Order: sequence, then structure tokens, then C-alpha cells
Amino acid sequence: MPLTGHQLIGATARRGSGEAFHAVHAASGEIIADPAFHGASLADVDEACTLAARAFDTYRALPDEARAAFLDDIAARIEAIGDALILRAMDETGLPRARLEGERARTTGQLRMFAALVRSGDAWDARIEPALPQRQPPRTDLRLRRIGIGPVAVFGASNFPLAFSVAGGDTASALAAGCPVVVKAHPAHPGTSELVGLAVQAAIAAAGLPEGVFSLLFDAGHEVGAALVAHPAIQAVGFTGSRRGGLALMAIAAARPAPIPVYAEMSSVNPNILLPAALARRGEALARDFVASVTLGCGQFCTNPGLVLAVGGEAFERFVAAAASAIAAVPAGVMLTAGIARAYAEGVERLASHPAVTTVAQGAKASGRATASLFRVRATDLLADARLAEECFGPCSVLVECEDADQLRRVLEQGEGQLTATLHVDDADHDAARALLPVLERKAGRILANGFPTGVEVCDAMVHGGPFPATSDGRSTSVGTAAIERFLRPVCYQNLPDALLPDALRDGNPLGLRRRVGGKVEAVATPA
Amino acid sequence: MPLTGHQLIGATARRGSGEAFHAVHAASGEIIADPAFHGASLADVDEACTLAARAFDTYRALPDEARAAFLDDIAARIEAIGDALILRAMDETGLPRARLEGERARTTGQLRMFAALVRSGDAWDARIEPALPQRQPPRTDLRLRRIGIGPVAVFGASNFPLAFSVAGGDTASALAAGCPVVVKAHPAHPGTSELVGLAVQAAIAAAGLPEGVFSLLFDAGHEVGAALVAHPAIQAVGFTGSRRGGLALMAIAAARPAPIPVYAEMSSVNPNILLPAALARRGEALARDFVASVTLGCGQFCTNPGLVLAVGGEAFERFVAAAASAIAAVPAGVMLTAGIARAYAEGVERLASHPAVTTVAQGAKASGRATASLFRVRATDLLADARLAEECFGPCSVLVECEDADQLRRVLEQGEGQLTATLHVDDADHDAARALLPVLERKAGRILANGFPTGVEVCDAMVHGGPFPATSDGRSTSVGTAAIERFLRPVCYQNLPDALLPDALRDGNPLGLRRRVGGKVEAVATPA
Repeated sequence: MPLTGHQLIGATARRGSGEAFHAVHAASGEIIADPAFHGASLADVDEACTLAARAFDTYRALPDEARAAFLDDIAARIEAIGDALILRAMDETGLPRARLEGERARTTGQLRMFAALVRSGDAWDARIEPALPQRQPPRTDLRLRRIGIGPVAVFGASNFPLAFSVAGGDTASALAAGCPVVVKAHPAHPGTSELVGLAVQAAIAAAGLPEGVFSLLFDAGHEVGAALVAHPAIQAVGFTGSRRGGLALMAIAAARPAPIPVYAEMSSVNPNILLPAALARRGEALARDFVASVTLGCGQFCTNPGLVLAVGGEAFERFVAAAASAIAAVPAGVMLTAGIARAYAEGVERLASHPAVTTVAQGAKASGRATASLFRVRATDLLADARLAEECFGPCSVLVECEDADQLRRVLEQGEGQLTATLHVDDADHDAARALLPVLERKAGRILANGFPTGVEVCDAMVHGGPFPATSDGRSTSVGTAAIERFLRPVCYQNLPDALLPDALRDGNPLGLRRRVGGKVEAVATPA
Repeated sequence: MPLTGHQLIGATARRGSGEAFHAVHAASGEIIADPAFHGASLADVDEACTLAARAFDTYRALPDEARAAFLDDIAARIEAIGDALILRAMDETGLPRARLEGERARTTGQLRMFAALVRSGDAWDARIEPALPQRQPPRTDLRLRRIGIGPVAVFGASNFPLAFSVAGGDTASALAAGCPVVVKAHPAHPGTSELVGLAVQAAIAAAGLPEGVFSLLFDAGHEVGAALVAHPAIQAVGFTGSRRGGLALMAIAAARPAPIPVYAEMSSVNPNILLPAALARRGEALARDFVASVTLGCGQFCTNPGLVLAVGGEAFERFVAAAASAIAAVPAGVMLTAGIARAYAEGVERLASHPAVTTVAQGAKASGRATASLFRVRATDLLADARLAEECFGPCSVLVECEDADQLRRVLEQGEGQLTATLHVDDADHDAARALLPVLERKAGRILANGFPTGVEVCDAMVHGGPFPATSDGRSTSVGTAAIERFLRPVCYQNLPDALLPDALRDGNPLGLRRRVGGKVEAVATPA
């Protein structure tokens, strides 16, 4: 089926009345002429949001099994698009086939993981405190469950055209929570967005759900996104992108008559700390793995290791030399968009021209391509100019030479919030690591040992989040089952007749949920 | 021990360098001359916050049992103050002895409930996803727990001088989460605040905790509170008070270089809906119980039923008549402060003089006292002027006469977020109730049947929260065990050597926590 460039508003697919724009072939920079994508008008935004609000009560009242089956069906329909999805995403993003096939598997796996979470009912956090009529004063019956917060606005991210886009983690967790979703497609992969959006729309029709459960809007600029976040029907926002973009959405959300939460994942340099014993024993191997992580996917990961900290000395110099040779061998890379490539080139130039920064090595150069770049700086200079630790999105990293362990700790302590922090640690480094862990716990959402932060596992125990400015809200994660909590709020039912209670809280536990009753977790019969 | 009027900064008790103010005897309006309380200077704020930041890592690393014992000890020390606390609180607030004794029991019960929660370890939400080395790609070991968010600023509330003040629910849940607390005392009960503050300070000294775990600052104005919320060390805010106050703190928090969450509980009219069968069968009894709830504690509860909705007709008129006689018999009441009494009088006057409002009945009048007041309005007029549904804090309620069930639903749908919503319902009303429940779930944190919302049980299943503007953050509760979640954030540990993991996540489960391992909740041996 050919692409149409139509936005999807509820059950309809029709041309936006806003300005037209085109997808761009990332590798060649050439425009993909057909189709034109038309931006949404403010009336389109209002219509999508109003439909979402209208769909909310019906959608959130669906039995768990029906909502789970809907998520499973979205996954199946994304798979059924077949190679057309991969080919279009390759064209629009410049990402290689293997990466996009892996990302598709992650996307569908994620939808199925949330389906399983919905089936388990654990996210509803059912609690019952039975009446205590004999107590003085008597206690009346109290029951709690979590319900969806309301319609959610989701912004597709440029660097994950499937897993953080139209039916990515934000959408999957919001739909799992019982929230309708209005997606603002990222203009860097509008065709990919349309294909996935049509799959979601078809799943809604097949399940007979209210059409407002999902809409997909286009816009090459910022107006549609701003109107979406400001719309009274929208109750929460999911965003992955630049710090500037995230801060703009936070400001709009905070200025609403009724402010709403924004979950923006914005920027992180993901410090890697090379502890002395590990550095001395396996510095060269670390350097090679580090460069592989820095340049993976042309460095376009939120978890890219953009800062390396170690105490200076001979072992550090060997690490630097090994990393330099590895970087020098890196071919020039295709970036997601011309804008990202430009911003990267500017970031590299800003670092290279800073008087306190030494360029360690660069990879191959090619017109319109990104050059892998490695810099070094003394911790003293970094402490004097925190901008040296700002994210330069792309295949770039800054090596920080510290005078001693204390100074290394100070660099971390003065640094900003991060998605991840990594310790490279041998047995002899345990005391040094233990001294740093409290700082890392305060500064990062995920702490790794002896690995690299690129590669985010989708599971119960993942945290893809972290203190500001890594995200707008360090209490949350955008990956893993805990991501559903962002879109839930608790409601208490006091003394309701059993017939008026939601099934999750009724006497006799008709849904077979794991409930907390009188402070104890109810035993639930598990099928053998 | 006589009061000193000293602020408590860490382990010290010393005169603030800001302006002096005095407590006021609520019933007489006379100044209590001794002692003078001195407001904190900005240097005092900075010192308290810096000490809190310094105490954080040590305090949050305390074994669960030690942190729980500390909370228990605060409770015991508050009890040990004895009658001096009750007498001082009676003077400062005008609340009667029985109420304050009950509130003290709630306060100490709350501290002990959080101690039990800390001992259970359930709030740390420990999750383990074991490594899957055979999987392609292999999965590395991932573990998650929740830790404290950092130092928390707590604002004492005027209407709960114990349970929502210095060692109230916000402080107890923040301390339980592992967060140091800096309290801004409410100037309406500074002596009560000093007494409780000294108990907390003594518990810290007895446990040998870092002094910065708790500080108590005074200020009769807004400067200290504003500086506290803006201080870089503060990571979250707990507040109960006026909408204007809460909005001001939200604005300060959002404008920080690193924004922080604000949990402000602000205003609510707690709609009560009289469904036809219940109204017809027991309207008079409902009217008497309703008036008792409206006038309880001189109406100074966040959960005061300030709005009653019913379809007009003969049964409604009987309800109105019964409520009118009950209100007329209510003596004039002492309010917490002269400022609150003035605002109440203005609110009553605003309603009484509104052309669409009829004054149904008023209680006794007395100089400087609050007059219980009952008004009525047609739903059509309320829909035309939403200000008629704004909170008038005190013993006041507005009866709304609706044309039919549809219009009643529209009033709820157009109304603001609420802490509570109550259905008065007989068996024959179940269908009508079922039709309203989806609206109530969206609008309120707690839904009651056949009771009144005043009286908030402290337990696992309580939600004292609700959509904006009832609170700043409808995803949370300020009462009950779930209140601890406000001050926690998740941290993931990837591939850490067992020796570097926190005890909560180590192999062999040394703390005996209920952990989620590989998607299943681990069985934990429970003592018989």
C-alpha cells in the first residue's frame, strides 16, 4: 500500500491542512518527493484531543484481557508490515537494516511485555483495608487501585524511529495504562510513522475500540507540539529529544491553567569511570570496547558514553593511545538528519577550539558525514567550565584526566543528572567504587559495572531515566514495565457497595489479582 | 521546659536573625508575648539545606531497622511531651482538646506506620532480572530498587498543627524514604512547632544520626519558604495550604535551573451527590449528618463537603429544610487564625451577595467567630459562573439544585479536580451511581459512598490527593503508606559485583525482602 502522507485522526486518514513537508533520504540528503506530508492545523489538534478525551472512559474500562489483546495485535500488525517498514526506515534515518530489525523486535517485544503486565494486573496496585467496625473510632472499608491519568501526548524521537516513536515505549505504556494517545510524529521519519500509525489504527478498528484511542499528527515545526501540550484534554506528555525541546514542553505544561506532568528524556553524557586496577590491567581492551560503544549507531544514543573519567598516569595514557587508534579507524557516518549532523559538527568544533581541550584523534572525514572524535581535558579545566561536559550528540567523547580520586569524585559531584554512570572495576577497585556509589546513585538512573551503557534492556528492572536534566522527572523510567507508572494515578474507594466497585477491588477477587489486603499480599492461585 | 522561640538548624537551637513575631491565642485573638519567634535569615535557610544535603548519603544508607527505630522514637518523644503539647496547640489553634489528642494519636500512629513500612522493605520495590547469557543478544544482570530523592522541604499546615505539620505525614514519609527534611513552621502554631521540632532533634541526637537530617525554620512571611523551595539542595516539596500558596511554590519550583516536584494539597469542595432513592428515603437523616460534617472542627478540613448536588423536587426541599434547621443551631466557632476568619467572612459575603445565590440558613453570629452558612444555587447558574463552586474554607456549603441527572453530571464534568467525591446511594440508585463513577474517578482522589469525607484514615488504601487543583500532582497521596512514593526514585544496577550491590539487591536476599525476581515475586519466609 503506498504512503499517502495523511494524518490519522481517530478512524480517519486525511490530509492535514497545515504546511507540507517531505521526508529526506538520510544518506543522500535528497528529498523523497512522494508523498508530501501535511502538517496538522490547530483544529486537527483539537479534534484529535477531543476524540481522545471522549474515548478515555470506554477505553480504560476495557477488561484487562481485551486491552492486552489490543497491544498484542498492534505488535502483530507492525510485524505484518514486513520489509516495507524496514526499507522506509532505512531511507528516512540512514540506520542500517540489522539495527532497525533489532529495533522492530524491541518495539513489538515491548508491546507484548506491556500486554503481559496488563494481564497480570499488578500495575493496578489493588489494595484493600477491610472495615474494622469494632475499632474506636470504627474504620470503614477502603480500597485502592491505579487508573489511567487521561489522554497522553507522545512525541516521536528521531533516533529510535520505532522503539521511541509512534508505537514505542511511551505509547505502549500509556495505552497499557488505559490512556488514549495522540502522537506528534517526528518529521525525520514521517513515512515510517504513517506505516506504524496505520497499524495502530487498524488494531483499534479490529477491536471495536473508540476511534479516539489513537491519533497521529504531522508537523515539520513546533506549533502542533506546543498546541498538543497546551490542550486541556491532554493529561501527560512523553518526549525524547533535545534539552531545548524538552525544556520548552515543560514550560508550556507548567504554564497551563491545570499543569500536567511532562516525561522528557533530554540529554546525558553517561560518565564512564575507569578505576585504577581495571585501567592498569585491561586499559587497551577497555579502550577498544569504549570506542565501539561511542561510535555505535553513529553515536546517536541517549546512553552514548560521552565522558570518561580516570586518574592520570601511565595506564591512562595507554588507554588514550589505544582509544586514539581505534577512533582513527572509524569511517565517517551517516547521521539521522542534516540538522543533527550540523549540530554535531558545531559541537565538535566548539570542543576542538576550546583552549583547554586537546583533540586526541578523529576518524575519517567525508562531506555531510559525521567524524568520530575523541578529546581530552584536565579535570581542573572541566571544573572551571562545566560546558565542557555538555552533551555533543554523536560519535564523540571527552576523556577527563583527574589528579586523584578526590578530584574525580568532585567532577561527578558537580556534574549534572545522567541517564547512566558506569564503573570499570576490578576486585582491587571495590573500595574506590564503594566510595563513588553514593554519588552515582544521586546522579544517575542506572549504574553499570564493566560494560557500556548503550543497549537498554526492556524489562522489570530497567531504569531509563535519571535526575534533571537527563530527564524532566527523575522519579520515572521510559523503558521497562515501571514506565507504566508515569501514566497511572491512585483512586481510593471508601465504603462502596460491592456492586459499584471495579472488578479489580470486588470481594472474592474475581480477576484473580495479587492484592494487598489488610497489609498482607493475598495468595493467588497460580496455574501450575 | 519553657519555649525559647529558637529555630532548630541541625543540632543547634538559636535565635533566627530575621524579623520577630508572636503566637496568637486563637480564641481571644491576644498575642502570646513569651517567647518571641524570630524568622530565619537567608543564611539560615542555606545552612539548614546544606546540612541536609550533607546528611543525605549517611541517612539514606542507614539499615532499615535503624531508620524505623528512629521514626518510632520520634513518636515516643512526641507522646513524652505530654499535656504541654496539647495545651499549647489548643491555645495557638483554638481546636478542642479531644480533636488535638486524636490528632496527636494520628501523628504518632503515622510515624509508626511508616516505621513498619520501612521494616517491611516493600517500598524499595526490589526487582532482579537475572543474567541470560545464552540469550541472543545475551542479557546482563539487572536489579532495581527505590532510593530517597534527596532533602525535602516541608511546609506546616495551619489546620493540622500536628498531623500535617512539623512531624506530620509529609515529614514522616520523607524521613521514611531516607530524605532529610527542612521544615518551614506554620506561623499560626510556632510554639507547637518548636515542641515537636525539639522532639525530632532529640531523636536524631539519640540515634547518632547526622544533624542535618532535620531542621526547623520560622518565618511569619513568605521569604523563607520561597528561598527554601529555590535552594539547590532541596529535591522535593510537601505543602498543604491555600491554592495561592501552592501555586506560588509550584512556580518557584518550575523556574529553578533544575526543577523539582512539588506536592501541594490546595483546595477542594468535595462534592456530595444525593441520589434520588437515598434522598427520598433518608434525606432528613442525611441532612443532619451532612451539617455535622460541614461544621466539624469549624469546617477547617480540606475534605469539608462544600458542595451538595441533587436533582430538585420535594425530597430535595425536605433535605434543605432539615439542613437549614441543623445549621441554625450551630454556635459561632473559633477559627485557626484571624486571617482565616477574615477570608471566611469574605467568602460567605461573596456568596450571600451573589444574585444567583440564596442564603438557606446561618448559625449563630459572634464577633470574631465564624458563622456556619448554608447557601443554595441552581445548577444552571453554577454552570454559568464556576466561581460559585470555589472553596470557601470554613463551616460553609453550597446546595446545588439540578434539573435532572444529566445536568448534575454536567456540573461534575465541568468542575475542578477534588480530593473527594461522595455518593449517597440506596440500592435503587446503583444504575445512577454507575453512570457517575467514571466522571468521579477522573475528578477525585477518593470516592465515598454513604458517609462523609471528613475523617481521613491513615492506611495502605488511602488516597488523600486528587487532580489539579485539589493537589499539584494527582499521581500522589499525602496520607497513607503510598505517600512515601512521592519521595522515592528508582535506580537500576547493571552487572554490579555482588559485593558492590546494596543489601536490598544482593544474592541470597540478606534482608529477607519481598523481591520480584525474573518477573515473579520471591517467596519470603514469614515468621509464624
